[in-house]
Amino acid sequence: MSESTPRSCCPVAGALDLLGDRWTLLIIRDLMRGHTRFGQFRESPEGIASNILSERLERLVNADLVEREVDPEDGRRYHYALTPAGRSLGPILASLADWGLAHLPGTDAKLAPPRR
Amino acid sequence: MSESTPRSCCPVAGALDLLGDRWTLLIIRDLMRGHTRFGQFRESPEGIASNILSERLERLVNADLVEREVDPEDGRRYHYALTPAGRSLGPILASLADWGLAHLPGTDAKLAPPRR
Repeated sequence: MSESTPRSCCPVAGALDLLGDRWTLLIIRDLMRGHTRFGQFRESPEGIASNILSERLERLVNADLVEREVDPEDGRRYHYALTPAGRSLGPILASLADWGLAHLPGTDAKLAPPRR
Repeated sequence: MSESTPRSCCPVAGALDLLGDRWTLLIIRDLMRGHTRFGQFRESPEGIASNILSERLERLVNADLVEREVDPEDGRRYHYALTPAGRSLGPILASLADWGLAHLPGTDAKLAPPRR
């Protein structure tokens, strides 16, 4: 699953090897909200840069958390969707959202991923 | 709580503004395991560098997730402990650990934080 040697046998460290940055879990959030296209991820309010988005999507595909398919109506475009392993990140997003709502003034739940 | 302007009102984004890197939540893990001193964090198997550890501890203290006290027996040393807001990160660590154990070969629970 992980693309490089894990730092330790700790499952938290292993998860952070893959997910521990400011952007990856926001892309997962957007996939859970039903976004499927590069341009949709770019439109999220955090303003992810194209090069970061490309790199993270590539990494998520390589880790089998996201699958990529060519758009049948436009061969130059891709559709992205969560795999079962990617969907299983839901509890991580939910716990981050719960904590943020409880402790960070000014946050609200309208962008939070749907509960499954 | 957050030290700079949040990227959006999304609570996941806000949480990642503070926690979204490869190291911060491992320091929280170690605090939950009972580590209190700089040298103890340095001994964890992931091998955090001193400058990263110093910067993250400073950020966690500024965010009121960790409190720092001078060691009464050695005025050159500090003790670190989680605040109530820091302890409330437990479900985030638990969900990362659960996901890692389920999806990352070679991880085991011996470094996982205790359940509360």
